Amino acid sequence: MNCEILCIGTELLHGDIINSNAAYISKSLAKIGVDVHYHSVVGDNPKRMKDAFDLAFSRADVVICTGGLGPTKDDITKEILSEYFNLPMEFDEKSLAHLKMTYGRFRKEMPENNLRQTYFPKGSIILTNNNGTANACIVDTLINQNSFEGNDIKSCKGNLDSKGKIGILLPGPPREMMPLVDEQVIPYLSKYSHEVVVGYKVAVMNVGESMAETMIMDLIDNQTNPTIAPYAGDGKMVFRVTAKAESKEKADELIKPVIDELLRRFGANAFVLETEKIEDMTFKKLVESNLTIATAESCTGGLIASKLVSYSGISKVFKEGFITYSNEAKIRTLGVKKETIDEFTEVSEEVVKEMAEGACKVTGADIGVATTGIAGPSGGTDDKPVGLVYTCVYYKGTYNVLKNVYTGNRDGVRERAAINSIELVRKSIM
Amino acid sequence: MNCEILCIGTELLHGDIINSNAAYISKSLAKIGVDVHYHSVVGDNPKRMKDAFDLAFSRADVVICTGGLGPTKDDITKEILSEYFNLPMEFDEKSLAHLKMTYGRFRKEMPENNLRQTYFPKGSIILTNNNGTANACIVDTLINQNSFEGNDIKSCKGNLDSKGKIGILLPGPPREMMPLVDEQVIPYLSKYSHEVVVGYKVAVMNVGESMAETMIMDLIDNQTNPTIAPYAGDGKMVFRVTAKAESKEKADELIKPVIDELLRRFGANAFVLETEKIEDMTFKKLVESNLTIATAESCTGGLIASKLVSYSGISKVFKEGFITYSNEAKIRTLGVKKETIDEFTEVSEEVVKEMAEGACKVTGADIGVATTGIAGPSGGTDDKPVGLVYTCVYYKGTYNVLKNVYTGNRDGVRERAAINSIELVRKSIM
Repeated sequence: MNCEILCIGTELLHGDIINSNAAYISKSLAKIGVDVHYHSVVGDNPKRMKDAFDLAFSRADVVICTGGLGPTKDDITKEILSEYFNLPMEFDEKSLAHLKMTYGRFRKEMPENNLRQTYFPKGSIILTNNNGTANACIVDTLINQNSFEGNDIKSCKGNLDSKGKIGILLPGPPREMMPLVDEQVIPYLSKYSHEVVVGYKVAVMNVGESMAETMIMDLIDNQTNPTIAPYAGDGKMVFRVTAKAESKEKADELIKPVIDELLRRFGANAFVLETEKIEDMTFKKLVESNLTIATAESCTGGLIASKLVSYSGISKVFKEGFITYSNEAKIRTLGVKKETIDEFTEVSEEVVKEMAEGACKVTGADIGVATTGIAGPSGGTDDKPVGLVYTCVYYKGTYNVLKNVYTGNRDGVRERAAINSIELVRKSIM
Repeated sequence: MNCEILCIGTELLHGDIINSNAAYISKSLAKIGVDVHYHSVVGDNPKRMKDAFDLAFSRADVVICTGGLGPTKDDITKEILSEYFNLPMEFDEKSLAHLKMTYGRFRKEMPENNLRQTYFPKGSIILTNNNGTANACIVDTLINQNSFEGNDIKSCKGNLDSKGKIGILLPGPPREMMPLVDEQVIPYLSKYSHEVVVGYKVAVMNVGESMAETMIMDLIDNQTNPTIAPYAGDGKMVFRVTAKAESKEKADELIKPVIDELLRRFGANAFVLETEKIEDMTFKKLVESNLTIATAESCTGGLIASKLVSYSGISKVFKEGFITYSNEAKIRTLGVKKETIDEFTEVSEEVVKEMAEGACKVTGADIGVATTGIAGPSGGTDDKPVGLVYTCVYYKGTYNVLKNVYTGNRDGVRERAAINSIELVRKSIM
């Protein structure tokens, strides 16, 4: 079974929003062994939407579509799908109750045009959206042929072979779409999937992309199941090792020797990413070891703390964070010596050490992590260029300092400096 | 002239990375009046890549492709394009020099497989990539027919009408792709575009999507040039007003009456977004007014500070930030009274007020902004549910408090609370 993800929205084609929906749905489908071969985006244009559905159903068994279920005039996805399947639109009583309840909760009156959200292609399985007004729907021509009650599903324009086709329409806003996928779409599609796909990621730090590939070329040449796919992330290289099998246990058995071999070849530079975010592994370790931490950030400006706080359960070990962007704050809050700044400037190894140690002293944390640097776009010199960032981790009386020049724009420099700072924490407590 | 953006990479289809490239390129093209009708993503699969190029060139004048220019075995985009145009691959001396220089800069030895990055479809315009090893290229069958030197461009499989087709291949990593687009691709394509497209965004806060549309339905019904497109963002509604004209001045003339009318109808809830990020307007105002600010964050955990620091030039007014996630830190650093926490709990109007005022007092800033709340997923009660966040802006002796219950996951709650906190700063200093 394979799937195409079709996202509708002129705002996507204008670049006003980034298409995170396609990635989220892909990741969810991968876990149940549904292959995704294409992502497509079209605007709110009826002709191009029709063409896109035709094309998607011609090359995929399942088409999952996001966007265009809202109350506004350019929300016509359901109408386009109903035309494709040659099904009339039908009023859904429960969706009206859902709408009224949702408006009631916010104590607002329901505008007339929301009524469009109560009509669906006849025979749809309707999915209740607990985070918005737009209910979602599944049109499944395989299991639903009977329930279409006399509508000639055979007159559907698409290439409906004996397997049938499945169209799934979801709302566009991620916080509405995500729970629908997790709680309703994935369980629904699971029953069609007879194998699981299990993937692990092995991150490799400090080794370039082509060098890393060269080091494991023989493994890549001989891959079948599991497969090994390389991709380059910000400041790291990741190998995705993926196996298909009838159960997770069997897939794990296939994967283990490959991962062991990768770890053997890259040594201390490689580790298995247990979670989606590389930094979460460090946070997990902090919580498990009950090691308290404090942050003192200059150029990263709260990004390290924000990543810490994004990890649920961190409150046990996150003592406090300081964003000491000004020298005045570095001195007053962290006890950095004015003379150190005068002698070495605020972007220096000496200052970052005092910041990290200061964060520990003020809060009583076990670990202090500090950054100071030049995020740009201005402020660079020949000696200290834009992108130069010092990080220090202070732990058990020892300073662990990293000096790096990051390329990229201001936010890019800050992001990569934050990730590398957290990675330095991981190394320091290993 | 219209364009399709084709992104290559199995990691995109696995959902391992989000396709931010398509949005970035779309936004850049919009400014020079090049319409984007489709985004497509395919994996590193030769057959599907070929099909994707065939399809893209059949429906677009320009195909911009990202990914697959690296040194690894699955990087075959250039080969696929050369096959499409029936052009041989040709060695480029300058790209070899570029490779050697790039490796020299990092003092690393160049692996053999990087040599693949020195071959391009014959007749390509080669674009130097200053941020990586992979040079980019443009194959322009219109202007380049002569320079193809005897290769029969007519034998190209694609539908090459008199206009010709343009294929542009860019590297996948955003920090390599973005400068190539800004500095080389957009200037190159500008010469083909005879009109400009100018867009403004009007943000509307505190009004629901369908209600907002109802209020301006007559304007939407009668739109031609400029057009008005609504989309719902996190906690705000945005109308994109876009006009095409032969110059920016003429486009502005067309747009002005529409924006004036939108502002009239929505009153204080609406404002024109001058920059890409809604929060940058507030930061600009702070810097212009020379109003200093300090942050005291609990559940947002540095996100407000991080957004502040992402604004270049903020150092003049950003005094200091505190992430007082623990009660201990709220008391020690901000001077919140223990009795206040005991009586009202840390998630309360009373505590957030003391936090905001404390941030001002400790740092001497003009404005203090503070948050406290329950980001989830655990920690909620009937009385204080997950998603409840208090924000306070303390300015000129006045407390401006916002109490909101945000839906969504932990990071979603934090993001929306941070944006709304910054919006509260904007309102407080207006």
